[in-house]
Amino acid sequence: MAQQAVIGVTGLGVMGRNLARNFARHGYPVAVHNRTNAKTKALMEEFGHEGAFTASESAEEFVASLARPRKMVIMVKAGQSTDAVIEEFAPLLEPGDIMIDGGNAHFADTRRREKALRERGLHFVGVGISGGEQGALDGPSIMPGGSQEAYESLGPILEDIAAKVDGVPCCTYVGPDGAGHFVKMVHNGIEYADMQLIAEAYDLLRKGVRMSPGEIAEAFRTWNTGRLESYLIEITAEVLSHSDRLSGKPFVDIVLDRAEQKGTGRWTVQAALDLGVPVTGIAEAVFARSLSGSVDMRGTARALPGPSGGDLDSSFADDVEQALYASKVVAYAQGFNEIQAGSAEYGWNIDLGAMAAIWRGGCIIRARFLDRIRAAYETDPATPTLLADANFAAEMGDAQDSWRDVAVAAARLGIPAPGFASSLAYYDGLRAERLPAALIQAQRDYFGAHTYLRADREGVYHTQWELPGYPEARVDV
Amino acid sequence: MAQQAVIGVTGLGVMGRNLARNFARHGYPVAVHNRTNAKTKALMEEFGHEGAFTASESAEEFVASLARPRKMVIMVKAGQSTDAVIEEFAPLLEPGDIMIDGGNAHFADTRRREKALRERGLHFVGVGISGGEQGALDGPSIMPGGSQEAYESLGPILEDIAAKVDGVPCCTYVGPDGAGHFVKMVHNGIEYADMQLIAEAYDLLRKGVRMSPGEIAEAFRTWNTGRLESYLIEITAEVLSHSDRLSGKPFVDIVLDRAEQKGTGRWTVQAALDLGVPVTGIAEAVFARSLSGSVDMRGTARALPGPSGGDLDSSFADDVEQALYASKVVAYAQGFNEIQAGSAEYGWNIDLGAMAAIWRGGCIIRARFLDRIRAAYETDPATPTLLADANFAAEMGDAQDSWRDVAVAAARLGIPAPGFASSLAYYDGLRAERLPAALIQAQRDYFGAHTYLRADREGVYHTQWELPGYPEARVDV
Repeated sequence: MAQQAVIGVTGLGVMGRNLARNFARHGYPVAVHNRTNAKTKALMEEFGHEGAFTASESAEEFVASLARPRKMVIMVKAGQSTDAVIEEFAPLLEPGDIMIDGGNAHFADTRRREKALRERGLHFVGVGISGGEQGALDGPSIMPGGSQEAYESLGPILEDIAAKVDGVPCCTYVGPDGAGHFVKMVHNGIEYADMQLIAEAYDLLRKGVRMSPGEIAEAFRTWNTGRLESYLIEITAEVLSHSDRLSGKPFVDIVLDRAEQKGTGRWTVQAALDLGVPVTGIAEAVFARSLSGSVDMRGTARALPGPSGGDLDSSFADDVEQALYASKVVAYAQGFNEIQAGSAEYGWNIDLGAMAAIWRGGCIIRARFLDRIRAAYETDPATPTLLADANFAAEMGDAQDSWRDVAVAAARLGIPAPGFASSLAYYDGLRAERLPAALIQAQRDYFGAHTYLRADREGVYHTQWELPGYPEARVDV
Repeated sequence: MAQQAVIGVTGLGVMGRNLARNFARHGYPVAVHNRTNAKTKALMEEFGHEGAFTASESAEEFVASLARPRKMVIMVKAGQSTDAVIEEFAPLLEPGDIMIDGGNAHFADTRRREKALRERGLHFVGVGISGGEQGALDGPSIMPGGSQEAYESLGPILEDIAAKVDGVPCCTYVGPDGAGHFVKMVHNGIEYADMQLIAEAYDLLRKGVRMSPGEIAEAFRTWNTGRLESYLIEITAEVLSHSDRLSGKPFVDIVLDRAEQKGTGRWTVQAALDLGVPVTGIAEAVFARSLSGSVDMRGTARALPGPSGGDLDSSFADDVEQALYASKVVAYAQGFNEIQAGSAEYGWNIDLGAMAAIWRGGCIIRARFLDRIRAAYETDPATPTLLADANFAAEMGDAQDSWRDVAVAAARLGIPAPGFASSLAYYDGLRAERLPAALIQAQRDYFGAHTYLRADREGVYHTQWELPGYPEARVDV
């Protein structure tokens, strides 16, 4: 009998295959299995030489090839397939074994599955894995949720195959049950916001300053040497400097301007609404993608009147850099607030600074900038908003004149910048001494007798709008 | 034995009580019932003289007092209570009887309940009722979903007790199963947006022009004689001109600036995300309320640097009126898009113009303006967006310079106006010839091989970013 595998992967699509190869390349004997055997065979033929693979044709064989406690990673399309695989394998496992879901599951599903399997004596670890195909192979950012006990035996392996930044693995224990998938979800939501802001920056330079894609690529390259240094800025420069091989035109000009989405951005906003956390930057980004794909609406609305760009001085590019940075800080602050709120709601006790640290490598939003977030949470782990951190606050102060100039230019020139505009409004809302929410609450009392609190004294009040002079009455005594 | 009641109401909280009185005042013999008998007794003692009430202490007695097909309205707190009442009464009813849920149920729950009861031979009518306590008594706006067959016997009664505008009842058949509650949900979402925009208009006049609440009340009174004429504008003037009786100060200044919410605004955004409909105005409104209640964040963020208002000329008020109107059109256009998408998704075949018509009276967002929406859908029932309607488009054209001025002033003066800013960005996004979504889709292809469509030719493409020169490859052949 062959040496038993330390870990197994079932579901050998490109993500599963690359993850299995990553385990193997790090010296772990790895069991592989797929519902249809062709993919297993293909993996063995093409990459079998990379490490100690054990290929199985059946679930029973796969389970038998795993050393105990068994660790099997499920890499199938999130949803019903995951439940089907769980139901197939769970009866074959023994107490203490560990099922790992590496798909993009909704955290509520992971909570449900973890609870059900815990009651059957099995560990269920929902793992957020970011970095796409290449990350899965070369080292992703890994966000594992589940029991501490499961992490004790599984964690070292995951940390081993994860991306490293300054020698530190981009993997750490996140928290119980759905915590890992929740954090991965918010990561993706932040990614939506980040990409939208970059797109707006590009659009403002293109339509506002009339820079060419190549010139804008240069601006992004320069920005990538500063505080905006990140994977997304880097690839933006790559994309913008690319000439389409079929038409010879700038590549960005031949791509149809409809951005698709797969759902985690939407989930992030929906969860934030449930938690009562304003994530306007992520919401605007998700809706901007929907808008771009609303072909019929755009078709009929193209004739609507308005300006279309300007001829701003090229120094405007520096303002855009400031606006992009400030808006990005807002988007991340909102995302981290959502993790904070989710952690409180579900009792996950998530270390926010550690989340920033494990996103520094492997994943799409990897950036130097995340070190600042880590540092901010080290200074004050319970800070209600990253914007209040002394370093960020100082940067926002420096950036805000330019930020306002950019929002003003967008409105004046008719260039849609919902991300910039919304993040600036959020900033101004957060720092407002008084908000017009007072008027809203007063209206609610007027038409729905919803009552209100007062700024000048304790107690719950209702104004008797049906009586002459509208007398105020305390209603909580 | 007494005359059998034409309709019954179980659940005699203030909404249920007022609805029962409304039926009675219109001459319908009405059966009343409450889980605890005290409320029933109180209703009989206080309002029994208003009509032909039959009070029942038990479910059996209540059902027996109803003429067939029985029509019983459930008026309990939406959620588990509704299911409990359904389970209590359904076994007592007979095929063809009609259960009516007048609570603020989520449309998905209504779909589930309608299906379950249909299978038991009962009609289940989910009814959106808007107008609060007073509306329930004097004539609400009523949005009934369910079977056509149920509407045939129930509809005339509901139309009778509904608000009337120009003699037309603010009640019409909406569509099958959850259609009524869905439309009511979106109505509430629009209400959130409308209130947020009004609050921003107030805030800009207060902080930007330094007008007093009384002066702003006058501005709203003037606006209420024009195209903005509506219940919400009217009560805003009332609220703003009211002096608090306890402190002598302007009432709006003593109300704590935290706007609460009950959930339908949140649902509207969550459903829109599922349907892929951008409802940025509603989302910003919901998040602005959450932000106002984020006490810890606001406490630490108050020190953030930025301007705080200005000394604009009072002519700015006219710009604000234009911005308020244009932003309101956007919010309503988005809301109607959501109803359109929900109708398509669930096969409801909703008449959009009719929805605008039944909101003209009885409900919180009642407004002259809704006649324009009705007219726009009469002109083109399938218009992809109200903004493309010739009349609205012309108005947007007239308003847009002022609208931009207001967005610019908000950004410059540090007055948070997320609703105005976001709706303007939506307008500019919708009419853009090219959106930077092309860059986003290109990034997605770069890091995730998500492929893209081209603006210049058919087919699905992927650029081979791993190869020198990044060659383009068609991947759908």
